[in-house]
Amino acid sequence: MNIEVIFGKVLRNLREEKKISQEQLGHLSELDRTYISLLERGKRRPTINTLFALSKPLGLKPSEFLEEIEKEID
Amino acid sequence: MNIEVIFGKVLRNLREEKKISQEQLGHLSELDRTYISLLERGKRRPTINTLFALSKPLGLKPSEFLEEIEKEID
Repeated sequence: MNIEVIFGKVLRNLREEKKISQEQLGHLSELDRTYISLLERGKRRPTINTLFALSKPLGLKPSEFLEEIEKEID
Repeated sequence: MNIEVIFGKVLRNLREEKKISQEQLGHLSELDRTYISLLERGKRRPTINTLFALSKPLGLKPSEFLEEIEKEID
C-alpha cells in the first residue's frame, strides 16, 4: 500500500479518536477542509510541514504520527 | 526557522555522519542528486514519501529522523 494511503487512514483514525470533524481539524491546522479530505483518501502526498501542522491539534508529536504509519507498514 | 530549513540541516548531518556523497544518497534513495542538494539547503519541502525514501539508506526510521528535527525545534 502507498505511504499516502496509509497516512490517510492513520489521519482519519486519529481525527475520529479526537471526535473532531474535518472542518474543525482544518481550522485548527490552518489547512483547507477539502485538503484534509483528499489527504484522508490518500489522494495527496503530505509534506512534512503538513504533518507538523496536523500533529499539534491531534495531540501527538509528528514523530509519533509517523510511528503509527510505520506500524501499519510492518 | 522553517521546518524545511531544519530538515535540510538534519539531512546533511545524517548524510555526513554516514560519509556518503549527495550523489550516493541520491542513488540509494532513488532521488536526484540535485533534489538532495535543494533539500539540504532548505529550498524544497519534502513529502513524507521522500522522508521514507531517505531514511532507509541513512539507517534510521522515518520517525527517528523526525525526532532529530523535533530536537532542533525545541
